[in-house]
Amino acid sequence: MVRSVGQRPRVAVVGTGLIGGSILLRLREVYPDVVGWDPDPATRAVGRDRGVRFPDALADAVRDRDVVFLAGPLASLPETLLTVARHTGDDCVVTDVGSTKDAVARFAVEQGLTGRFVPGHPMAGTERSGLTAAVPELFDGAAWVLCPRLDGIGPFRMLAGLLVTVFSARVVPMSPTVHDSVVALSSHVPHLLAGSLAGAAADVEIRDAVLGLAAGSFRDGTRVVGTPVERIADMLFQNRDEVLGQLGQVRVVLDALVDALRRDDADALVERYRRAQELRHALLDRALDEQRREFPVDGDHADELAYLLELGSAGGQLTGCAADADVVTYLARRPPA
Amino acid sequence: MVRSVGQRPRVAVVGTGLIGGSILLRLREVYPDVVGWDPDPATRAVGRDRGVRFPDALADAVRDRDVVFLAGPLASLPETLLTVARHTGDDCVVTDVGSTKDAVARFAVEQGLTGRFVPGHPMAGTERSGLTAAVPELFDGAAWVLCPRLDGIGPFRMLAGLLVTVFSARVVPMSPTVHDSVVALSSHVPHLLAGSLAGAAADVEIRDAVLGLAAGSFRDGTRVVGTPVERIADMLFQNRDEVLGQLGQVRVVLDALVDALRRDDADALVERYRRAQELRHALLDRALDEQRREFPVDGDHADELAYLLELGSAGGQLTGCAADADVVTYLARRPPA
Repeated sequence: MVRSVGQRPRVAVVGTGLIGGSILLRLREVYPDVVGWDPDPATRAVGRDRGVRFPDALADAVRDRDVVFLAGPLASLPETLLTVARHTGDDCVVTDVGSTKDAVARFAVEQGLTGRFVPGHPMAGTERSGLTAAVPELFDGAAWVLCPRLDGIGPFRMLAGLLVTVFSARVVPMSPTVHDSVVALSSHVPHLLAGSLAGAAADVEIRDAVLGLAAGSFRDGTRVVGTPVERIADMLFQNRDEVLGQLGQVRVVLDALVDALRRDDADALVERYRRAQELRHALLDRALDEQRREFPVDGDHADELAYLLELGSAGGQLTGCAADADVVTYLARRPPA
Repeated sequence: MVRSVGQRPRVAVVGTGLIGGSILLRLREVYPDVVGWDPDPATRAVGRDRGVRFPDALADAVRDRDVVFLAGPLASLPETLLTVARHTGDDCVVTDVGSTKDAVARFAVEQGLTGRFVPGHPMAGTERSGLTAAVPELFDGAAWVLCPRLDGIGPFRMLAGLLVTVFSARVVPMSPTVHDSVVALSSHVPHLLAGSLAGAAADVEIRDAVLGLAAGSFRDGTRVVGTPVERIADMLFQNRDEVLGQLGQVRVVLDALVDALRRDDADALVERYRRAQELRHALLDRALDEQRREFPVDGDHADELAYLLELGSAGGQLTGCAADADVVTYLARRPPA
């Protein structure tokens, strides 16, 4: 039986780079007995220097834990998940922080782990990497996707409550496939565009002059190129089909802008930019309504799951999740209907 | 005879929106007798409320001036230049702030104004517009392109000195054609990419979820869409051929990234991102050497012009310009050879 929200869970963080390290540092402020683990001995040494327990063996780090965060590279995730599952009990909740969700969610189905593994993705980061770059406040106010399922609703509720209360995160419930489509456009395609812009500037004859005149638009448009290249390659390859699909949508608009330019059609160009500008204003000025919803703790959870998935698709977020013996209560913010 | 650097010039600013207004406000701190003019009576009233002289007639604003900044929309520039030239003496130096330079430079040649018109382009701005958004510190540390010519070297020197001393700007000397190529890639293409990304998000079914999960990469990649749409359309149409050409370079890199993704070629993708990342690092960490160069005030100016144009192409900038009776001295910063 999964512990209910509100108890002090024993937590481990596996993979303590920028994201995992930041999770660890924040958890330690609330749960001093948090344990860390990283495959790199030097990173474990850094963690111990900071006063956190970092056993040499992964099994020793997770054996008695109630919750385990998996924060290593995407490619290492399936094997790490199996190892952690093998060394923990069936009531230990496991979540990950990978930037794509469908592949790991399918793997969890194949391995029969959906009752205690909840795919996750905190939407936060910096251009830096490693435990030395980690900061406990990294997730304050950040969106943190969790993927709920009927057979894992208990672990979902527990994690949602923990992410909101410990990390001040806004939990966005989504199915793995919707998540991967959305981040393709909201994160991965922007990385492709930034790489193309910076890459073109690197190759042109006027490179030095471009550097001399780089305006805010060029600086903004190339910023995420500073992300470690392996991390960029990881996210693009793991989400390739969705990335290429959403890039196709961007190319449609780009072709329309170019066509308007070629045809000297200022009205068409301005109309396109007005639509783009409305989207930008909607992004900057999101009016969200407060909402409170209750569901029975027991039962078939179908209504609860439907509510959660619709909330995420509508651009909403959970700002609270608490359960007593009978009722689970969600606090949410969502765009007006 | 153009006044030498160091005297207190009588200045007018024609067109007092965000850019012209910011020029006016900064100038007023140094030269209290600066005069403003705008075609919009309400803007003239705002200017007068701020204690600046704003005559109703353009001719009255510029008649006795030593320097006139033209800061209206690109489309109005040729006519305004002719009007200002007609109502000022041959020793009145005129410059503009338009975001493309070749068209207005050619117009000045046709009209025989190259001896006193120096095309200019300050690389600064915000998403806001209008005199009410203007701030005197807008150009602190910003690149400000000026286009020198053999027959306008005196006005160039005077303006370069004024921009450095009054606006704390870094003056980048460039030919109009080089400028237009460079800003196509460093400013205009980023606006196209931002419009395409935001425009695609506006049209897709998952729009609301994208807004809910928009990461820093999406926010950065769409920021300049907030620029007034008429200003974006103006710059893209005025520089169309260069914009389409430089966009072609960006598409080459984008196609290569997509090809690497499709072929599952992680090495090729990572190599492309490494090149892009080097460019980004070069942008953030530009080591510039200090340089001092002197040229005779009189003579054929060929060496001086060649020096200036090479400096701008190399990504360098002027940080000082002063002349005595015999010698003009430039202080510059430039990337190491």
